[in-house]
Amino acid sequence: MVNFEELKNYLEEKRSKIEKTIEDYFPKKGSYGKRVLEAAQYSLMAGGKRIRPILCLIGYELYKDNSEEVLLFACGIECIHTYSLIHDDLPAMDDDDYRRGKPACHKVYGEATAILAGDGLQALAFEWFTHPDLIKRIDPFLLIKAIHCIATAVGFNGMVGGQMADLLAEGKRGSYKKLKWIHTHKTVALIRASLLSGALLANAPSSHLRVLSKFGYHLGLLFQIVDDFLDLVGDEKTLGKPVKSDLKKKKLTYPSLFGLNKTKELAQITANTAIETLKPLEEKAKILEILTLYLLNRVN
Amino acid sequence: MVNFEELKNYLEEKRSKIEKTIEDYFPKKGSYGKRVLEAAQYSLMAGGKRIRPILCLIGYELYKDNSEEVLLFACGIECIHTYSLIHDDLPAMDDDDYRRGKPACHKVYGEATAILAGDGLQALAFEWFTHPDLIKRIDPFLLIKAIHCIATAVGFNGMVGGQMADLLAEGKRGSYKKLKWIHTHKTVALIRASLLSGALLANAPSSHLRVLSKFGYHLGLLFQIVDDFLDLVGDEKTLGKPVKSDLKKKKLTYPSLFGLNKTKELAQITANTAIETLKPLEEKAKILEILTLYLLNRVN
Repeated sequence: MVNFEELKNYLEEKRSKIEKTIEDYFPKKGSYGKRVLEAAQYSLMAGGKRIRPILCLIGYELYKDNSEEVLLFACGIECIHTYSLIHDDLPAMDDDDYRRGKPACHKVYGEATAILAGDGLQALAFEWFTHPDLIKRIDPFLLIKAIHCIATAVGFNGMVGGQMADLLAEGKRGSYKKLKWIHTHKTVALIRASLLSGALLANAPSSHLRVLSKFGYHLGLLFQIVDDFLDLVGDEKTLGKPVKSDLKKKKLTYPSLFGLNKTKELAQITANTAIETLKPLEEKAKILEILTLYLLNRVN
Repeated sequence: MVNFEELKNYLEEKRSKIEKTIEDYFPKKGSYGKRVLEAAQYSLMAGGKRIRPILCLIGYELYKDNSEEVLLFACGIECIHTYSLIHDDLPAMDDDDYRRGKPACHKVYGEATAILAGDGLQALAFEWFTHPDLIKRIDPFLLIKAIHCIATAVGFNGMVGGQMADLLAEGKRGSYKKLKWIHTHKTVALIRASLLSGALLANAPSSHLRVLSKFGYHLGLLFQIVDDFLDLVGDEKTLGKPVKSDLKKKKLTYPSLFGLNKTKELAQITANTAIETLKPLEEKAKILEILTLYLLNRVN
């Protein structure tokens, strides 16, 4: 794979496999609790780039041929990402009405159902991570390590802590230190863990895990800087959510601290740094290099 | 162990070990996200009978000598139970102001923090289930099976589905079929899974797992029937939450369907059935028999 066109085809192929697997394994809707399953499925299948599960597959493919073996694990990661979007959009949190181009979960199903849909999606992730179909193919010791990596990344010292700090920072004067803390916890932690989990499942050597961890950090940061940027200059229809939402909420973002031009520059520098960290992996990591440039230039 | 007094000492000893372990492993509160950790700790350490983690320890002790080996796993179960209480109490859900004798989490920390505290506690559970200190002692294959058992029990086809159905049933005419569905999902699933997870971690034979699964079903049902009963006749101070709350919300409960006397009778019958299912385990399961009678007669 050497160019954007090939990467796009690759991402599309993986996206399609991920969505097929989610559909195959999603719990059947029977009996009295089915409303919450409908709500969860609504948000889970509302589209999305599926970048996190794809990073897991890429991490695996660096060391093993057949990433179909860990597709279900990757889908669990998407469940966690979707739960975080549903809860973030709640009125008590970011109070956003649109997500992935559709009304937010709580706008369609109400707050109680949306809270439960998020809760259930987090549980479903761990149900899939430990699914008998995965144990058939993956050494349980590696599975445990990969699950621990994800659980840690989405907990108090990861995504949840980052969301908390992000909410608390609204409307207040912020520092670069605080901004970086928020972004590395809110966004970077899960993106990095997604890539690492795939490599862990493939039993990658520790020296490579260290490289991928550093790379994942910079890639995650890049992802959030571009997110901050697109909130200001992106196209509402392409993004699938209202723009200038960070501005209205007085969120602490890269543009709020540095302005648009400097933010663009920082995105470029972060992409360069990410690519730089990949050097020890040589040709093996070519796909991550192209992916970095792709995410630098993304419009949604 | 043959009598209530000895059981009480046993429960007290285990409760104390569980709380000590939670304190030892609870994440350190540093930096910008610490508010959500404070909120989570507030609810986690607000007291509680710790019945679910104790059931996990009992399940383990039926087959292995030293249940200290799985204490951290048991504590993870308590994290999940506490997260479910925090989310249930939210205004959009059951809208309860008191829990475990103290103001509910969202009354002290606000809704956003309470939602995140619950989310983080669920993640923390799985972080602990896969903690390096557990892998040292437990075969990862057994660990995976136990985690799967818990994750399934608290998801859409377990606790979360039950909560959904419970909310939807408020104020509507209910049937015994619906009541049983709600209770077996909302409450029974996690209680049964707690006991089973301990037995799974100890590599119990399948024939015993089947017996414990049946027993766990009846014990969980008993627990919820007594809960329904205590909501009407219990003492507010002893319970740590307002009584007659189910009545005000027009919840579908055993007393709402059968009246108080019949509910008491059904509790007794369910306890008898639970004890009956234990027969194949003979003397080994004596502690579960006494625990059943203890839970039948509990006042909080």
